[in-house]
Amino acid sequence: MSLVVVGSVAYDGIETPHGKRERILGGACTYIALSASYFTRTGIVAVVGDDFAEEDRKWLIEKGIDLAGLEKAPGKTFFWSGVYSDDMNDRTTLRTDLNVFADFDPKLPSEYKLRPYLFLGNIQPELQRRVQQQMNGVRFVGGDTMNYWINGTRDELLAAIRHWDFLLINDSEARMLSGEQNLRRAAKAILDMGPNTLVIKRGEHGAMLFRNDTLFMVPGYLLEDVFDPTGAGDCFAGGFVGYLAERGFDLRNGHFDVHELHRAVIYGSVMGSFCCERFGAERFRDLTRQEIDQRFEEFRKFTAF
Amino acid sequence: MSLVVVGSVAYDGIETPHGKRERILGGACTYIALSASYFTRTGIVAVVGDDFAEEDRKWLIEKGIDLAGLEKAPGKTFFWSGVYSDDMNDRTTLRTDLNVFADFDPKLPSEYKLRPYLFLGNIQPELQRRVQQQMNGVRFVGGDTMNYWINGTRDELLAAIRHWDFLLINDSEARMLSGEQNLRRAAKAILDMGPNTLVIKRGEHGAMLFRNDTLFMVPGYLLEDVFDPTGAGDCFAGGFVGYLAERGFDLRNGHFDVHELHRAVIYGSVMGSFCCERFGAERFRDLTRQEIDQRFEEFRKFTAF
Repeated sequence: MSLVVVGSVAYDGIETPHGKRERILGGACTYIALSASYFTRTGIVAVVGDDFAEEDRKWLIEKGIDLAGLEKAPGKTFFWSGVYSDDMNDRTTLRTDLNVFADFDPKLPSEYKLRPYLFLGNIQPELQRRVQQQMNGVRFVGGDTMNYWINGTRDELLAAIRHWDFLLINDSEARMLSGEQNLRRAAKAILDMGPNTLVIKRGEHGAMLFRNDTLFMVPGYLLEDVFDPTGAGDCFAGGFVGYLAERGFDLRNGHFDVHELHRAVIYGSVMGSFCCERFGAERFRDLTRQEIDQRFEEFRKFTAF
Repeated sequence: MSLVVVGSVAYDGIETPHGKRERILGGACTYIALSASYFTRTGIVAVVGDDFAEEDRKWLIEKGIDLAGLEKAPGKTFFWSGVYSDDMNDRTTLRTDLNVFADFDPKLPSEYKLRPYLFLGNIQPELQRRVQQQMNGVRFVGGDTMNYWINGTRDELLAAIRHWDFLLINDSEARMLSGEQNLRRAAKAILDMGPNTLVIKRGEHGAMLFRNDTLFMVPGYLLEDVFDPTGAGDCFAGGFVGYLAERGFDLRNGHFDVHELHRAVIYGSVMGSFCCERFGAERFRDLTRQEIDQRFEEFRKFTAF
């Protein structure tokens, strides 16, 4: 079942203790779509400038990603650069040039409007809301957000997520959004805001899924080398929603298997872990579905008792 | 199968955002033994002063703990006090009066010497080594340590753990002991130092077990209220080794089930989580084995996929 992803496509400059890249393809929408593309047909809604490289467009198309919603605007593509600390737990942003992304006004191609799965990447909540309104017959919709919108446009954010099935954020964002330090209480408060499913990402410490009818927790995959954590959370999102789209998971028919949501969290964790093994999205150049399924089984093995 | 635990018995003064206790029973050996006593007959080797309260002695005896190795020395019992930060992630030590614990010279009662399970709590590594030498026919021996010994008496520590089956430490101690930042590499290095089993405790983030033949990870139990985390790591140790003693786990006969070690990590996590629900060791006043087994099943439920 096909998926629509909305968000940023960007170029990133990244420096980690393992090396440096001046300008590589990045942006939340890119990572989410690359990750989801292993599971389901994925169309993106994003904007790039006229400096967007033909080879990057080709790569996305080769991965089966539908670019009908990739708008090209006069100007430059969103550029971000940052440097990671030695232990990779902190990063410092060096530059954020929004460029054409500053005026991003997502337009859904008509062929996207009937697609059943929608992931709203981290953009202005009012835009997220308007995109969802354009969709017809969505079965499963959700998205991401960040501290900037939680603090700056709280009302718009609450208006947007009220109609989502799931919200996928990290632990500090969950605490900020709920005003609760304890994650169990934070989750309760957030589930009262609209989404029936909350996924809290905790980076190397794994992830948790909360619903009124289930709680699921998974530890982080233990990599021997974390090369570059950029995009790992977005790849988690892509694996999570991509797997559910592949399975035709339908929250609205009332007969779903809650364990599918658990397995989606595992696939999210698997995709996030692969992302960290190379710079940017480079791991997806040769990653195979077989490797993904193998790591899924590894998760099963190292959490079984 | 019975267990011997060596370590500190103390009085603690504790302040958390939930309240304050001026003087309650504490010490690593106390927590380990209380936790293990739910699974197996447990004897302690420790020293207290002449201020040790009769009611505390009675409580330990009521829990079935064997006090033949609890020496009474002239002077005062080890006293520690500390205060926790608002988020409980940091604590500041206010006072450490070693008192009679400063000259602790563990003496094993003869009836302890044939017991098959031994846990060496965090004391001077040379003392840990001498205790182990006095035991005959131990099947499974291991223990804990801390930054102070890792930095200050490294050679003695290496000499002690060389003969252990398992080492149980937290993540920062594993990094310090191995000189490796990455936990997978750290574990490899530590497994080369002697122990065939390494358990790394990560507090609220759960725990990991490493061996050459298995890797196991469990997320932390998500409590709604962390009342007081003092002793949680020791209760983890007690649940881990207590469960294995109850099962008669025998690493040396070559026919053990490695999943028993996984389940021991779960029981450790269960006991650590209960410990945090009240001040000090107070939760063990009314905790039942039934509640413990229920929480074990909860772990199964929230990690199944």
